[in-house]
Amino acid sequence: MKKKKKVNAAILIIGNEILSGRTQDKNIAFISNWLNLNCGISVSEVRIIPDVEKIIIKNIRSLSKKFNYVFTTGGIGPTHDDITAQSIAKAFKVKYGYHKEAYEILETYYGKANFNDGRKKMAKMPIVSKLIYNPSSAAPGFITKNVLSLPGVPSILNSMIENCKRYLIKGSKVHSKTVNLFTVESNISKQLNNIQKKYKKHVDIGSYPFFRLGKIGVSVVSRSTSKGKLLNVYKDLMKEIKKKKIKILNI
Amino acid sequence: MKKKKKVNAAILIIGNEILSGRTQDKNIAFISNWLNLNCGISVSEVRIIPDVEKIIIKNIRSLSKKFNYVFTTGGIGPTHDDITAQSIAKAFKVKYGYHKEAYEILETYYGKANFNDGRKKMAKMPIVSKLIYNPSSAAPGFITKNVLSLPGVPSILNSMIENCKRYLIKGSKVHSKTVNLFTVESNISKQLNNIQKKYKKHVDIGSYPFFRLGKIGVSVVSRSTSKGKLLNVYKDLMKEIKKKKIKILNI
Repeated sequence: MKKKKKVNAAILIIGNEILSGRTQDKNIAFISNWLNLNCGISVSEVRIIPDVEKIIIKNIRSLSKKFNYVFTTGGIGPTHDDITAQSIAKAFKVKYGYHKEAYEILETYYGKANFNDGRKKMAKMPIVSKLIYNPSSAAPGFITKNVLSLPGVPSILNSMIENCKRYLIKGSKVHSKTVNLFTVESNISKQLNNIQKKYKKHVDIGSYPFFRLGKIGVSVVSRSTSKGKLLNVYKDLMKEIKKKKIKILNI
Repeated sequence: MKKKKKVNAAILIIGNEILSGRTQDKNIAFISNWLNLNCGISVSEVRIIPDVEKIIIKNIRSLSKKFNYVFTTGGIGPTHDDITAQSIAKAFKVKYGYHKEAYEILETYYGKANFNDGRKKMAKMPIVSKLIYNPSSAAPGFITKNVLSLPGVPSILNSMIENCKRYLIKGSKVHSKTVNLFTVESNISKQLNNIQKKYKKHVDIGSYPFFRLGKIGVSVVSRSTSKGKLLNVYKDLMKEIKKKKIKILNI
């Protein structure tokens, strides 16, 4: 089997409404799951920042150097607080202006008579960018170097995500295996620690408390690019669980 | 009126389960809302990072320098992947070990006979830290310099948040006023831009599309520490809305 390389990404959420707690973010989990499942790309860092140009520029520069891809969400609409496109142009020192193809798409969508200044603003971006088409509301996202810019509204973002695929190199998918146990974390922490040590190069084991049916439990989640290693961890875990007579919750 | 100063904070979410998209974060919005409402503290940046010691250390160092407070969530339980406490000790180069008061609390809670190594681990932290008491499950959070460490489980975090108050300096609360309009953003973008320019020093105006009752709308959210300025923005906005004959959604 040809070995694929690890490909990673960061997500940069641009928006005062998420930072202030007014709006509950839904894009992080969606993008992260989609990237892993469809492209074998792991999200390694997420940042949420305000609609402030110099802060956006600084984060675009540092994250685009550090990770294979950066996904931005928010700030590409028609209003004054939508400053993602101009900030990315400044971050990369490339020309900002009307993007010919984006302009044509939006003019066709709205009709010449209704294509006002606010709508025209959505055609402004780094002119070197390539478009990420938008099947729900026309206004396209765009990719500038390794930075992919998407809107903040989850339903529109979700409809566009497949159109990012053509710009992404595929990496090795991370598989996961979850075992839900009716016990407390401290009852299996030693065993988990030993198994994690044994497989530390290939498998990440996490343990997360849950509350269900009035009982406390622990979800043990193993993650690895190797299905074989994941199975070995599962077998080791099952042996320990049997020894300790811990019940498994089948869901 | 005595003028309060601006106090800000960052939130550092430590956990592979959030980054991978397996778990939907609920702590960011909760902490951010609570801080503003109860302490007049604004969250200025959020980062989500994996359970990797050197990454935690780097982020603790940079965020604690940049903001008045840093809130961490996750990684303070009994298992091998809970490495927040030791990472913070290393970040600040302070001694990590059993915290006397935390040890006593946990030993009393579990009873001597059941106080196993996993549970004892939750009493290990920077020994200079002060405790953030936990009324739901005993294991305390802690504050080290300006970094407050809380657990990742939302119900437990929520029960502890009031116990952070004693460690925080109060700032000026940000008030907000939302007007929901039955129109599209591009129809009012020019007007919003003008109002924002007029009040740029004191008020942040954001515009967010929504979909309700089968119609598209825009929420215009103004935020300011000054209630007077907020009222002025509201009056200016109402004038423009009347001129354009835009309907308001009363909710």
